[in-house]
Amino acid sequence: MAVAWSEKASSMEALSLSPPMSPPVILTQDELKKIAAYKAVEFVESGMVLGLGTGSTAKHAVDRIGELLRQGKLTNIIGIPTSKKTQEQAISLGIPLSDLDSHPTIDMAIDGADEVDPHLNLVKGRGGSLLREKMVEGACKKFVCIVDESKLVKYLGGSGLAMPVEVVPFCWKFTAKKLQNLFRDSGCVAKLRNDCKGEPFVTDNGNYIVDLYLKKDIGDLQVASDAILRIAGVVEHGMFLAMATTVIVAGELGITIKNK
Amino acid sequence: MAVAWSEKASSMEALSLSPPMSPPVILTQDELKKIAAYKAVEFVESGMVLGLGTGSTAKHAVDRIGELLRQGKLTNIIGIPTSKKTQEQAISLGIPLSDLDSHPTIDMAIDGADEVDPHLNLVKGRGGSLLREKMVEGACKKFVCIVDESKLVKYLGGSGLAMPVEVVPFCWKFTAKKLQNLFRDSGCVAKLRNDCKGEPFVTDNGNYIVDLYLKKDIGDLQVASDAILRIAGVVEHGMFLAMATTVIVAGELGITIKNK
Repeated sequence: MAVAWSEKASSMEALSLSPPMSPPVILTQDELKKIAAYKAVEFVESGMVLGLGTGSTAKHAVDRIGELLRQGKLTNIIGIPTSKKTQEQAISLGIPLSDLDSHPTIDMAIDGADEVDPHLNLVKGRGGSLLREKMVEGACKKFVCIVDESKLVKYLGGSGLAMPVEVVPFCWKFTAKKLQNLFRDSGCVAKLRNDCKGEPFVTDNGNYIVDLYLKKDIGDLQVASDAILRIAGVVEHGMFLAMATTVIVAGELGITIKNK
Repeated sequence: MAVAWSEKASSMEALSLSPPMSPPVILTQDELKKIAAYKAVEFVESGMVLGLGTGSTAKHAVDRIGELLRQGKLTNIIGIPTSKKTQEQAISLGIPLSDLDSHPTIDMAIDGADEVDPHLNLVKGRGGSLLREKMVEGACKKFVCIVDESKLVKYLGGSGLAMPVEVVPFCWKFTAKKLQNLFRDSGCVAKLRNDCKGEPFVTDNGNYIVDLYLKKDIGDLQVASDAILRIAGVVEHGMFLAMATTVIVAGELGITIKNK
């Protein structure tokens, strides 16, 4: 379903954007992210247990949920954050929080993605929170993924950007080499992710991230997933296979909603 | 191959035990562990890169390697320890050490196991070092497993003791419940491992251990392995499938050596 901006003035108003006119409005990538996020929050109902995603797109959704709670338009929401960062954001917005141990079943999660393929498989984790995201989003009845159109790819890894794998720090070079060898036929290059100081990036779980860069697709994704997980030293990978129930894509021409 | 004690006086001498007589010598479990360990060290040759196991049986092997190095009967050995504890032991014995990053191929590893099934599949990790052990022993040309005969089981989990799974601390209860549900048909009960102070036991990698107790076998082990690894929150499990190349079993009637 594609909804052009001209038919969707209410969303535009909510975002305080100018109404569409000729010549068309040029939206920034961040504005597109915000549009997708706000659209997703329209699906949220009072009383829901909500998985709260991490990253620049999900941040808009969490902000919006906080806003609607303050306005009294949403009530009795319990948020399950997918990272320490989102936890802090949600606390600052006054969103009541809990965790998976107390709420093992979640009504809905809203989160961004780094890549979305035509079958709604995702790559996530360039923000570094893939493990907690996968735990929370795997426990959801509905997982609404929100992206701007730049995230659509023909196959996972197709953006040429990182496919992240969380690994234990112990002998990470050894693990990285194993990962690279696993996808040798796809021209894989494995690199340790560093933070802005040039030190290894450390996840919320105290692990490292090895980013895989691929030149070609890796074939059957479930086979690839199992092969990665069988490597001792790997904690989790950033492929989210058959997990998203809805993907909301915001593009220059409007919003597209894809359901599984 | 079973070798009775009476035919194996040299091993007995090495252990400073009394020679076999009538009535037969009653050996303690620790003496049996030591016999298996010493037998394994007979396979070690000068110049080898050696995986050094962890636990009460492996400790005897590491002690013996240190002794032979001191005596000059072994030279030019590089040890790859599978835990911080073994690393400390090896350092105290003067065994030169390295790691998987520098030595991604290991000639031989010697380590104990908690269970050995008829196909030489193992349960390991009751000592808590399963992840590093699996990384090191998965990189070995030969993996010699050393046990006393009490460790032989008809099927993995058959001892009724723990089958350990290393999990991230984040929402471990949720992960434990998923593990328990996975093996519900085998009467699985999942329990967090505590240390002697009643606090969660923390692995060398900063994770927790969930111990699975099974009433029946879990069927196809490779299928079970993949199912465990697919649970986000699981880091690694203690089943070592098709990894041991040799198992040395010390029992009251002698040593049995089983090769893959």
